[in-house]
Amino acid sequence: MENKATLISYRPDIKVVDCTMRDGGLVNNFAFADEFVKELYRTNIAAGVDYMEFGYKASKKIFKKEDFGKWKFCDEDDIRAIVGDNNSDLKISVMTDVGRTDYRNDILPKKDSVIDLIRTATYIHQIPAAIDMIEDAKAKGYETTVNIMAVSKVNDEDLTNGLNLLAKSSVDVIYLVDSFGSFYPEQIRRLADKYLNVAAKTGKKIGIHAHNNQQLAFANTIEALIDGVSYLDATVSGMGRGAGNCYMESLLGFLKNPKYNLVPMMDFVEKEMLPLKQSGAVWGYDIPYLLTGILNSHPSSAIKFIKEKRTDYTNFQHELLDLE
Amino acid sequence: MENKATLISYRPDIKVVDCTMRDGGLVNNFAFADEFVKELYRTNIAAGVDYMEFGYKASKKIFKKEDFGKWKFCDEDDIRAIVGDNNSDLKISVMTDVGRTDYRNDILPKKDSVIDLIRTATYIHQIPAAIDMIEDAKAKGYETTVNIMAVSKVNDEDLTNGLNLLAKSSVDVIYLVDSFGSFYPEQIRRLADKYLNVAAKTGKKIGIHAHNNQQLAFANTIEALIDGVSYLDATVSGMGRGAGNCYMESLLGFLKNPKYNLVPMMDFVEKEMLPLKQSGAVWGYDIPYLLTGILNSHPSSAIKFIKEKRTDYTNFQHELLDLE
Repeated sequence: MENKATLISYRPDIKVVDCTMRDGGLVNNFAFADEFVKELYRTNIAAGVDYMEFGYKASKKIFKKEDFGKWKFCDEDDIRAIVGDNNSDLKISVMTDVGRTDYRNDILPKKDSVIDLIRTATYIHQIPAAIDMIEDAKAKGYETTVNIMAVSKVNDEDLTNGLNLLAKSSVDVIYLVDSFGSFYPEQIRRLADKYLNVAAKTGKKIGIHAHNNQQLAFANTIEALIDGVSYLDATVSGMGRGAGNCYMESLLGFLKNPKYNLVPMMDFVEKEMLPLKQSGAVWGYDIPYLLTGILNSHPSSAIKFIKEKRTDYTNFQHELLDLE
Repeated sequence: MENKATLISYRPDIKVVDCTMRDGGLVNNFAFADEFVKELYRTNIAAGVDYMEFGYKASKKIFKKEDFGKWKFCDEDDIRAIVGDNNSDLKISVMTDVGRTDYRNDILPKKDSVIDLIRTATYIHQIPAAIDMIEDAKAKGYETTVNIMAVSKVNDEDLTNGLNLLAKSSVDVIYLVDSFGSFYPEQIRRLADKYLNVAAKTGKKIGIHAHNNQQLAFANTIEALIDGVSYLDATVSGMGRGAGNCYMESLLGFLKNPKYNLVPMMDFVEKEMLPLKQSGAVWGYDIPYLLTGILNSHPSSAIKFIKEKRTDYTNFQHELLDLE
């Protein structure tokens, strides 16, 4: 693999994607203060982060605007209120969910938008619908990724077929997503090889989006990196649904490309993330997430358990096993 | 390597070593309540843990008894007050530090002791002294391990020479120790291979003791496990100096040998570890530990930073770099 680097050198093809507001938005219902968002934007620029994801582009025909913070919808004007014309090297991303996005209307032509990258999240059985969305975004002039969710529940034959469909699409990057934080590094290695084989034939890139249920999000991210994966998702202090994600601080501390800078990120943690945690936003490793990770289950039941301030882990394990 | 297992099968040569009271004792000055210790002992038996380390066998000529909890010294009577004659499959371990242990006097003949395993912690330059201690313990009838600390600061030639000396000793297990939590899994793989080569020639076993500065303690432990390492250190909820250790809950959740049981360990967390944390004992991943891990530094400065409730991470990084 020509992309390999040592622990001292670096690969210029690596891209770091900050998902704090998107995956972290699932923690606080997308209700980030404007000052937080402006500060995160400035921080990502100073830290050399490549992409900043502002949130979802959710359909207002399906979701009521008043039920969520504005980053569930990422209106063009709301993004521009933060970034202006975004005269920086930081690119801007939004996520679109299959079946929950009015993409034909809500995704503007690229020439009218400050967004650079449209990331489409799909389950395996929705891939044809995802490709429709990808081709729409591509035709409008955007960079595109596809994030196949919950692959830990997908059989190998279906995954092969799904990847082959995507290989024929015009998507730029295919993401390996560990939705339930259930993969061990050796499984990431095998899956990354599978994805990279598709990429090698079609000139696409591969990305990784990890969850921290077993405290393996960073380990799995650098495992994928070593294997040749180049788009790396992370969030500040791991903020994200349930156990959260790969810590941006860990990732920037690992990468050797001098463009990346951990210092502004640490300042952001001190100034914005510590108060956010103190205000009651809850995420991060805990035993219930370990259990859903081990059992390859959706974290929703663990999120509920923690919200109810329960600590009867053994009863929770029984409840989980009864659901299997 | 004939020891290999899949993610579904298991290796019967694996031994799990609970170091909660020893590494965790560095957090609370070895002042565990008797009820905590009794409950941990019962829990380890019920969970199928192989060894329980009670603490250090420190010299009372060097350390004053009144300055520490009793598990700094692990007197025979104190252990017996918890375990009686230890009529169980759980073996009992203590750690002896080179230069800080009055081993000729304080380590009793095995026939007079309920301890099974003497673990000797050594720096690379103390290996001849460590071998003296190992041979003393072996002659008295104990199982023995040697834990070479701070190998992340040792050059490869010295490590080879140290391992070759130990290979000729009667030690049973040689431990790969990531004292500063600075190793990435690919480095663990290379080091594990180096240690395992020595083991293969001499019939010794290899162990792993990881720290969680970069949230890699569990990842590094299972990486070593996959490579063929068989003695695995862990602590309940990762309790240990600074960033702490590999979480016992994660490790028991990973291992497939039906002798291991996560349920009593979760009950112990609920009953004993949550109150211990609430009482003010502080350990676990935090940015200052990430920084000392990345810089391959002793965590003492990070422990002080956190104790002082500082959050100026950037200043701390400057202080660390000035010390390099």
